[in-house]
Amino acid sequence: MAGGSGTRFWPLSRKQRPKQAMPFLGGKSLFQRALDRVEALAPPEHTLIITNEDQAELLASQAGGLPRENIVGEPLARDSAAAVFLAASIVVEQDPDAVTLVKPADHLISPVEKFAATVNRAVSIAGEGFLVTFGVRPTSPATGYGYIERGEKLEAAEDAYRVVRFHEKPDRQTAERYLAEGRYYWNSGIFVWRAADILEAAREFAPEHFEAIRPLGRLFGTGEFAPALREAYEPLEKISIDFGVMERAQNIATVEADFQWSDVGSPVALRGCHEPDESGNVRRGLTHTLDAANCVLLSDEDHLVAAVGCEDLVVIHTDDATLVCPADRVGDVKRLVSELRRREETRDRL
Amino acid sequence: MAGGSGTRFWPLSRKQRPKQAMPFLGGKSLFQRALDRVEALAPPEHTLIITNEDQAELLASQAGGLPRENIVGEPLARDSAAAVFLAASIVVEQDPDAVTLVKPADHLISPVEKFAATVNRAVSIAGEGFLVTFGVRPTSPATGYGYIERGEKLEAAEDAYRVVRFHEKPDRQTAERYLAEGRYYWNSGIFVWRAADILEAAREFAPEHFEAIRPLGRLFGTGEFAPALREAYEPLEKISIDFGVMERAQNIATVEADFQWSDVGSPVALRGCHEPDESGNVRRGLTHTLDAANCVLLSDEDHLVAAVGCEDLVVIHTDDATLVCPADRVGDVKRLVSELRRREETRDRL
Repeated sequence: MAGGSGTRFWPLSRKQRPKQAMPFLGGKSLFQRALDRVEALAPPEHTLIITNEDQAELLASQAGGLPRENIVGEPLARDSAAAVFLAASIVVEQDPDAVTLVKPADHLISPVEKFAATVNRAVSIAGEGFLVTFGVRPTSPATGYGYIERGEKLEAAEDAYRVVRFHEKPDRQTAERYLAEGRYYWNSGIFVWRAADILEAAREFAPEHFEAIRPLGRLFGTGEFAPALREAYEPLEKISIDFGVMERAQNIATVEADFQWSDVGSPVALRGCHEPDESGNVRRGLTHTLDAANCVLLSDEDHLVAAVGCEDLVVIHTDDATLVCPADRVGDVKRLVSELRRREETRDRL
Repeated sequence: MAGGSGTRFWPLSRKQRPKQAMPFLGGKSLFQRALDRVEALAPPEHTLIITNEDQAELLASQAGGLPRENIVGEPLARDSAAAVFLAASIVVEQDPDAVTLVKPADHLISPVEKFAATVNRAVSIAGEGFLVTFGVRPTSPATGYGYIERGEKLEAAEDAYRVVRFHEKPDRQTAERYLAEGRYYWNSGIFVWRAADILEAAREFAPEHFEAIRPLGRLFGTGEFAPALREAYEPLEKISIDFGVMERAQNIATVEADFQWSDVGSPVALRGCHEPDESGNVRRGLTHTLDAANCVLLSDEDHLVAAVGCEDLVVIHTDDATLVCPADRVGDVKRLVSELRRREETRDRL
């Protein structure tokens, strides 16, 4: 799944240069890193990218040996349930018993060995008909993630459990309780299941989606696919896979993921996954600080960003736009981007 | 006096593009505005610019009809006392009775008519042997300016007083008392005196300066001037005219200046002299704000600066450097510039 519009990373990310495709801290894009990660698990011809139409060519240029037809561009944004059902419909036509790993392209994960080991544990459980989510063991009382509450232990694999319930992003106090109690995981949005099983769940819990999308699998690879896809997507509600299926189905399991994980939901998340300087500042490009602490300062090698006396501030410089925003306000960047879209002078910077 | 190194306005001002010479909010530089202001009072051939050697050509290019030889470049920075004595030494050779207006080139003053009227009042008092300072009636309890405490009223002109004492930049509480009591003025650093009188004061209170600089007046306009100037300046201590003379001499008067005045000592001062938006933000160039208040956002028309959720923040974007600094920390920009001077990668941005 590589379909994010990337507004939360503006001005680094743009409509034509979404977060997952932009060169990240040190070279490769998040998308390329995601491909590297699955390369160890499945051959390129078994890797399917669901993205939006506008980004398909850009991602193709970064996708190395992946067959071009395996990059599917959605003509309309219909959230993750549609993308998941579309992928499953395509895969199940090729192999009715296929077990699939479904993951967002814009997460940071390391090390790759631990990730692969977790996938393998999940595959064992999926083989028994479970829809498996990856639960990341929390390292802090984060309020920016949803949580998974685990229940009864499963026999089929180590550190695997039935899911009692999914919980929305908690407040600080609740997050601290989750962390202390030990049976709550961060909801990573990474899944393993048999394609046939998630389609069965779609039929039960999201029947309109199922009816619209399931027939597309048979058209994949033909000239009828693109127009049928548009027609199928047009009337669909935007529903996430969590809301559409995971929070309703009974056969949900979770495997504990002990790898390092971050969804890099905003520049502030870089503080958690990039080595800061001795004052806690995450820096890229040519920067200088004087009494600055816990800032995220992103520039390039040609432009100096100097921060004096700043704390918890995000400064992102790009060629044609600079964002300045306190770390606890980055959630509003999405709203900023909407405002910029309505202004003629700023529209071309999105 | 147009000799500032301009570090406090970095990155807008540079060594080769000092504050007084940079295109300011809306076109003309502060230096050009200063020239416009004195044009009404004296012909160009009676206007003398004391600047540093490195800036002389740049200022000459902005000086319109001013004779090139009237722009004197100092080879070494020796603070304002040396500059004032040098100007007086040159002027007194041409007219022993000359009354001179001495003013920094980097202040914002308006309207020009009130300024001219104040100068004329000051000239009357200077004719009686006083060294006259311009005291600006405070409009707020500013802590960024020195203050002049006035005493006995003088007969020679309206709103003119003897000076009791000069006061350093006060703390907030003291500044509020000054404002309430009504007999304290902001020390504008603008003076009127007979050239002969300030030289007499130099002889008494700064004899080393006097001995070194007084002979230069006779060499002005000859090939001997430049080498003699360097030799004279070399051993001099850096002393301000306030410390060197004004705080020591007895014949000090002040005229109340009722024009709008700002020394534009830092970008924050722009808040006081440029129309802010409805949230108190001073903006230049292409900017966008979302919940930002009392910020100073300076960019150009080609680069968007977007501030989300910021308060009292200064953001200055230029082609090769961006500064981000809370308004109450701009005093540290000078220190920042020293640090940047010591870093090889940043040195060429000063």
